[in-house]
Amino acid sequence: MVKLVADVPLSTLGVSQWQNGEIVKTQDCLAEETPVALIYNGVSHAVMLATAQDLEDFALGFSLSEGIVQSAGELYGIEVQVQDNGIELHCEIASERFMQLKERRRTLAGKTGCGLCGAENLAQAIRYPALLKTYRRFNASAIVTGLKTIQAQQKLQQQTGATHASAYVQADGTVGLVREDVGRHNALDKLVGALAKQELDRTGFIITTSRASFEMVQKTASAGVGMLVAVSAPTGLAVRVAEQCGLTLVGFARESRYVIYSHADNIMNE
Amino acid sequence: MVKLVADVPLSTLGVSQWQNGEIVKTQDCLAEETPVALIYNGVSHAVMLATAQDLEDFALGFSLSEGIVQSAGELYGIEVQVQDNGIELHCEIASERFMQLKERRRTLAGKTGCGLCGAENLAQAIRYPALLKTYRRFNASAIVTGLKTIQAQQKLQQQTGATHASAYVQADGTVGLVREDVGRHNALDKLVGALAKQELDRTGFIITTSRASFEMVQKTASAGVGMLVAVSAPTGLAVRVAEQCGLTLVGFARESRYVIYSHADNIMNE
Repeated sequence: MVKLVADVPLSTLGVSQWQNGEIVKTQDCLAEETPVALIYNGVSHAVMLATAQDLEDFALGFSLSEGIVQSAGELYGIEVQVQDNGIELHCEIASERFMQLKERRRTLAGKTGCGLCGAENLAQAIRYPALLKTYRRFNASAIVTGLKTIQAQQKLQQQTGATHASAYVQADGTVGLVREDVGRHNALDKLVGALAKQELDRTGFIITTSRASFEMVQKTASAGVGMLVAVSAPTGLAVRVAEQCGLTLVGFARESRYVIYSHADNIMNE
Repeated sequence: MVKLVADVPLSTLGVSQWQNGEIVKTQDCLAEETPVALIYNGVSHAVMLATAQDLEDFALGFSLSEGIVQSAGELYGIEVQVQDNGIELHCEIASERFMQLKERRRTLAGKTGCGLCGAENLAQAIRYPALLKTYRRFNASAIVTGLKTIQAQQKLQQQTGATHASAYVQADGTVGLVREDVGRHNALDKLVGALAKQELDRTGFIITTSRASFEMVQKTASAGVGMLVAVSAPTGLAVRVAEQCGLTLVGFARESRYVIYSHADNIMNE
């Protein structure tokens, strides 16, 4: 039996390219997706299909985005264990947080959630982010500068054409951090984790190469970042939640134009 | 408090468009994403963020893809109930299947799965599809014809630029069915449901406007369809699973060229 699961971010493969009736043999570079299990204090919590890269950032960012820990300091350690059928991330969290997680899981006893993380009925489905604490304005030119800069830093995307990126862009347009993954939610969780470790100030904003769904807005706001710039479309729900929590939401972002979906007054043409 | 959740597939909104330093007020049409709960014989099972359209197809396709029912006939009825915080799909399934679902859920008691549907450890994460029963070959020209035809049938995408489509294309290239959703997995589940109801033969193939991840291959093979054509990239895992289960996998599909990632001999240049 061939081992189907890879523990690397990408792989190469011989393929057949069809072009106007001719078939040519060639090589292709593929993004891998690897089952990654999150295990807290020895108890399995969830499995995501993710890119096997920056997994410590992923563990921290996922734990923060899901409210499993409240700060980076509550995640004491992460051990990455490669198994035959995927990768296990063993996270050691503060005992108080572990008790809360067990309680959260106990209330769902005998029920299996999926789709939305652990939700199995409508009341649990949407965790609306709290109102952002600080009011922030952003320079229109910083968005353009950020968009110009991130492409060169999407190393996996350049090789595979199959991955999303999330980037943290400082207020002046400098790209501070980029994380990539086959899943856009994972890329953002990795970025949130990296951001928490570096303790960068939160006066900048996040660019995602994907669409802006509700969950992307929710993760950005939960990380205390005031603007999300998406290269593709937002959803209606994402816009209303952004409006309500004070997040500036930009979509269809290109270097020469973009659409502002919420809190347009926060963007300044300096 | 503004009602945040919509029960319609799309909505319009006044937005600000930034273009080279000028801000112009305009209207935009947005795809909605709505929490949709799947409830079997009165018991909540999962909540997905989905497009509120073709929800009966979604209920049947999800139930088939997840192995909750084995055939369309085992899903006796679906009632769609619009609630304030989303939409409930009340599914009535055969009592034997409901007992199996309860047993599956009982083994996960006290554990919450997320990411991969209900999986909370690596051993549960990947359900490899069975070997496809019939060996099938496809005409290269049918792929091109299908790709040319589906765009005109992506009604939501034309209005919103934010939705994926899955289409069933018959062996001669005729597009039989198209389903759309903000989520690519949901669009494919809707198509699988529609396909099961119409009892079309399975000699055709599926086109998806998205990437081909493992789950897209798994759903296509489980539906007994022999080829998946993705407009964007496949992942390495998707290719290996396709190779193993006998599914022909095509990626980066354009009208003039595409890449064949598995079982290239099944595509004939007639």
